[in-house]
Amino acid sequence: MEKGRVTIPSESNFLAETKRLMALWGADAIRDSDGTKLDDELKQIGAKIYTTYFVARGHNDFAEKHLEEVQQAFLLSQRVTATKTTAVIPFMAGYLAEQLQPNYREDPKEFWEVYDRTLGEKVAPENWEVNQTENSVRLKKWHPYHEYTVSFLASMVWDPTQMYNHITNDWGDKSHEIPFDVRQPESQAFVSNFLTNWLAENPDTDVVRFTTFFYHFTLFFNDQKKEKFVDWFGYGSTVSVRALKAFEKEYGYKLSAENFVDEGYYNSTFRVPSQSYLDYIDFIQRFVAKEAKKLVAIVHGAGREAMMFLGDNWIGTEPYGPYFKEIGIDAVVGSVGNGTTLRMISEIPHVNYTEGRFLPYFFPDVFYEGNDPTVEAKQNWLTARRALLRKPVDRIGYGGYLSLANQFPGFVDYVSHVTQEFRELYGRISDTKPYVGITVGILNSWGKLRSWQTHMVAHALWYQQIYSYLGVLESLSGQKVAVEFLNFTDLKEGVPSEIDVLINVGDAGTAFSGGKNWSKTSLIETITQWVANGGGFIGIGEPTAYLANGRFFQLAHILGVDKELGFSLSTDKYFKTENTTHFITENKEAKDFGEMQKNIYALSKDTQILSYVDGSVQLATHDFFNGRGVYFSGLPYSPANAQIFLRSIYYAAHKEEQLKIWYADNPDIEVHAYPEKKQYAIVNNTDLPQTTRVYTATDNYNISLTPGAIEWRDYDE
Amino acid sequence: MEKGRVTIPSESNFLAETKRLMALWGADAIRDSDGTKLDDELKQIGAKIYTTYFVARGHNDFAEKHLEEVQQAFLLSQRVTATKTTAVIPFMAGYLAEQLQPNYREDPKEFWEVYDRTLGEKVAPENWEVNQTENSVRLKKWHPYHEYTVSFLASMVWDPTQMYNHITNDWGDKSHEIPFDVRQPESQAFVSNFLTNWLAENPDTDVVRFTTFFYHFTLFFNDQKKEKFVDWFGYGSTVSVRALKAFEKEYGYKLSAENFVDEGYYNSTFRVPSQSYLDYIDFIQRFVAKEAKKLVAIVHGAGREAMMFLGDNWIGTEPYGPYFKEIGIDAVVGSVGNGTTLRMISEIPHVNYTEGRFLPYFFPDVFYEGNDPTVEAKQNWLTARRALLRKPVDRIGYGGYLSLANQFPGFVDYVSHVTQEFRELYGRISDTKPYVGITVGILNSWGKLRSWQTHMVAHALWYQQIYSYLGVLESLSGQKVAVEFLNFTDLKEGVPSEIDVLINVGDAGTAFSGGKNWSKTSLIETITQWVANGGGFIGIGEPTAYLANGRFFQLAHILGVDKELGFSLSTDKYFKTENTTHFITENKEAKDFGEMQKNIYALSKDTQILSYVDGSVQLATHDFFNGRGVYFSGLPYSPANAQIFLRSIYYAAHKEEQLKIWYADNPDIEVHAYPEKKQYAIVNNTDLPQTTRVYTATDNYNISLTPGAIEWRDYDE
Repeated sequence: MEKGRVTIPSESNFLAETKRLMALWGADAIRDSDGTKLDDELKQIGAKIYTTYFVARGHNDFAEKHLEEVQQAFLLSQRVTATKTTAVIPFMAGYLAEQLQPNYREDPKEFWEVYDRTLGEKVAPENWEVNQTENSVRLKKWHPYHEYTVSFLASMVWDPTQMYNHITNDWGDKSHEIPFDVRQPESQAFVSNFLTNWLAENPDTDVVRFTTFFYHFTLFFNDQKKEKFVDWFGYGSTVSVRALKAFEKEYGYKLSAENFVDEGYYNSTFRVPSQSYLDYIDFIQRFVAKEAKKLVAIVHGAGREAMMFLGDNWIGTEPYGPYFKEIGIDAVVGSVGNGTTLRMISEIPHVNYTEGRFLPYFFPDVFYEGNDPTVEAKQNWLTARRALLRKPVDRIGYGGYLSLANQFPGFVDYVSHVTQEFRELYGRISDTKPYVGITVGILNSWGKLRSWQTHMVAHALWYQQIYSYLGVLESLSGQKVAVEFLNFTDLKEGVPSEIDVLINVGDAGTAFSGGKNWSKTSLIETITQWVANGGGFIGIGEPTAYLANGRFFQLAHILGVDKELGFSLSTDKYFKTENTTHFITENKEAKDFGEMQKNIYALSKDTQILSYVDGSVQLATHDFFNGRGVYFSGLPYSPANAQIFLRSIYYAAHKEEQLKIWYADNPDIEVHAYPEKKQYAIVNNTDLPQTTRVYTATDNYNISLTPGAIEWRDYDE
Repeated sequence: MEKGRVTIPSESNFLAETKRLMALWGADAIRDSDGTKLDDELKQIGAKIYTTYFVARGHNDFAEKHLEEVQQAFLLSQRVTATKTTAVIPFMAGYLAEQLQPNYREDPKEFWEVYDRTLGEKVAPENWEVNQTENSVRLKKWHPYHEYTVSFLASMVWDPTQMYNHITNDWGDKSHEIPFDVRQPESQAFVSNFLTNWLAENPDTDVVRFTTFFYHFTLFFNDQKKEKFVDWFGYGSTVSVRALKAFEKEYGYKLSAENFVDEGYYNSTFRVPSQSYLDYIDFIQRFVAKEAKKLVAIVHGAGREAMMFLGDNWIGTEPYGPYFKEIGIDAVVGSVGNGTTLRMISEIPHVNYTEGRFLPYFFPDVFYEGNDPTVEAKQNWLTARRALLRKPVDRIGYGGYLSLANQFPGFVDYVSHVTQEFRELYGRISDTKPYVGITVGILNSWGKLRSWQTHMVAHALWYQQIYSYLGVLESLSGQKVAVEFLNFTDLKEGVPSEIDVLINVGDAGTAFSGGKNWSKTSLIETITQWVANGGGFIGIGEPTAYLANGRFFQLAHILGVDKELGFSLSTDKYFKTENTTHFITENKEAKDFGEMQKNIYALSKDTQILSYVDGSVQLATHDFFNGRGVYFSGLPYSPANAQIFLRSIYYAAHKEEQLKIWYADNPDIEVHAYPEKKQYAIVNNTDLPQTTRVYTATDNYNISLTPGAIEWRDYDE
């Protein structure tokens, strides 16, 4: 196939060049972008037309008339230390008033909470009063030298994404888009009617690109106009009195402000979720699915396709959740930053197709004179391609200013190559399954709901505390491994039979390590039995960590290591010698454990230490009855680490002899086989020439690959 | 004074040289050592004679006849994972059978405990049985894939110190000294009688050097003849059925094996002590004081002095405890490794004198051809001297083989210098008090009981997890600071009025940081009020750490920093800029935070960051109402760190303007003033020439000092 499966942006007054680039790249769809509009003429050149559509913002004519329906959030004030003489909390301090306003329409005494954070107790409503002029709460009775907070219901008067763009691009007096809440009666009527009319007025739109539906992920700005709190998964902005009442009616218990502000952690995706928060997520997801379904039906009724952008106002739509399929959306598009985000999009079920927006975005931050945007494009493509070879998205695309990209002929050439290569690989593998040698289960508090979405704060931003864990999914995203995402409840009836190796990764106390879930005896029992019977368990960072019964790592008996917390120093730790010949490290690649861990020690001589750095075990294995445990202190992504990780998975599963099937010794090269097609691809994931020995199912040989090359070969057997 | 206050070891056939060295060093006392004996002739040369005396070991003739009175300990077996078919725990596995034997004389069903460590529950005695032939416990009912342990009563059939020496020096078939328990009737009679007779038989002994009394600190060896568990403060070896019953009678509740094995932590000094362990300590201390008092009375009755060695079988005598004074001991001698251990000895109350045994010990590990023992001697002397200048021991001494030391003339010379310098400084300051500019309180779970003894595992051994905290006491040991040791209960009625600055130092969850003590609202309230009113609070490592109410550091509001544990990443942390001009760091000395901390962040711009390394605050200050907080991530000892710490104390107390009173700019030089004498000493703590500006109370001037010099000067005003 020489054309198609590619979406490009365009803009006003760019017709001829758009046509040229469409032809060059084989694009079959055109989209608008933030700040660009498509001319009518452009819509007639035979391409599918995507049009960005905002449901719950960008309609200030309506919103300003219905400020009682503006979106809400519970906010937590700063902590104020009371003295003997005064206890006043200026609760708006530190928040951006242009985004967030205290909601005095609803009775503060009913919905707000004042907390004594030193005691961890709520202050009775009769003991405080609100000063609406000063946005402060004064306590009438208090404990001197305790810290107090106010949790208050706030109106979100500025859509966070528009706010971000507005502030970042200095849009001056451009009006602030007010988000309104589809749960409210006027808003609900408005969104359906507006969409119906809009479809009539935009007959050239083939694909309504919802950006997105109703509720933005949690994003609060501070009084310096900078981000104050961000959680890409946060349900904080879905709150309303109406929602709270509906929840209470359905669940039989009441949610309070504290359920949302959560001591200041706001139920971030890193928190081990409470049952009430899980209930609330379910409640919102069902509501969002129901309402989004109505809009999709309107789109379908007008003979168009409905696509949703995975981000921004996506809360409640989580595509791996139980209600997503009810929405009936045709397609999902999302930004591809690496292999993990590619799989996050390409694995989405219940849609007709998925689309990955590749980088770089055509914006002046990359496309400026003297810079070569091809560098980022190559990096993005080579990183994502290994994941595409496991499960491709159905389309790829770009965003931003096409006219800008057009000024970089080298980049234009490279995109020609990418689009052509994408179409070729898609043509070869889209209707078949790649060879899978092993199945792993990623075990955390979120499981399937947040498939391919672990350890993300906000999109692909780098955080010192997470990069050492992100390598797990990034490695797996392009390997011959089937990946399942399991939560702790999924193990109630035992470890699913298809799993070869369970993986638990993260910092102690986080949703990803699991925190108090590891106080459950049944969980420990289940996994212990399963490993004893031959399963593999890999822990990374502070896996299974929960201090109880003389252990920090609750599966220390499997992993063969535990962490010294400072009160078991009296017990001698003798085992520090590295084992220099081991299956996992046979390739002698340099290991990088990222932030590493301190104070990890081997429990006995039965633990094989493969790396011991700075007084701490960094990599170890341990036999446990018929099964095996493997410990990594961290696993940032690199080709070498990915290979070591793959080897450790095979080792943990006692499948060492199957490693060298569809395998390459050189970690920069990977091999993907498609048994139904009797084809395989040898892929150079780097922009340098590479040489390796390649292993097929039956044979092995040496090969050299040019930079970035894919070699497709047939095989029979 | 040209002679005296010095104790030296001697040995057989070394009379003439002993006399020569006595004269050279001005020694007035001679002691025996491990493996040496003093000839009768030596005892007649006019020196005071110390003789090492073992109370509860070294009498195997008696012990072997009364094996039912041998000392006991509760031991915890290894953890064994039960399977579906088997649950057998070989509970002696990993223990040295030559040291520890299961005690089958007492009914296992009454005293032993089998624990399901997965559930954290005791197994009913009817569900297990002991196999005495195999030293194993077989469960009759169990949960497959749970971990089980056996806590068993064991007889300690080898004194740990003799065992250590025996194994280390390869003493072959030399008999193993069996420790017996003075709580038992035969042993009690024996120790008094033997001592009475021994005194009669040893008329030349002037000082009975008890080494020590009844119970050794906890020290278990493994089956490889290596240390398995060591706690210099451990009460593990004081247990007996008789003790348990007496405890129950007095306290009205029963202690079980679990109270001692403590999930495997054995109540180490790093554990936040339980109330039952505190009760037990008190119980043992009273018993030891009562029994030791009897022996001291016998010594006094014979007209001799009673001295105790601070170590080995010292458990229950803790000199800073409430019952120590009742023993009536005349003197305490201990090993001086640095300034902290010097103060640990010199501050001991209720004795006529203290003696510090200086290093190096005259053993072949240091005194061998080609090595210069003067290096260690200088280091030891210069490190301890700054502490001597605050509070001197009354005597100094050495141990080991005098004949060996005598072969090193340079060393012999240096000791002449040390002893003379000691006598001079002692003569000047022993009857007066040094100038104190400020008073600090070290706040931890142990308080006064373990004055100058925080963060010690076993004597002065280096551990990666503690060296970054030991610098606190080591700095203070030689500074113009009064040091009090407070436990959390001591703050019940408020912070004692004399305290200027409270200091909390250690890892989260340890006795030294305080762990769950920081869940007490009253404690937080007390300190918060006190700092708000002008107090200073310095936290080091993970101070006040206890995860609750949205904070990890419970006094984060004072310190201005908290620790990111991995689930508050969603909250932006902006404050990373170092403040380059600050009183604390004015001297621009290189800072060393040792192991440092990760993920410490400033709460707001009000926190002044003085060091930010590897994404984490390492040193910061924060104003809190009228008081101040200071945070250090770690403080290993160095002269530069000591000075920075001193400056931080003055800063925290708002006493900056008083820093430069009896002060030197060069951190290698310190100034100690004695106001009653109108004298001061300027001390070069290094073996290099040093120059500095010196500040008296009213003046300042430059001075150069030769290596290791003390300059004594008079002042008036």
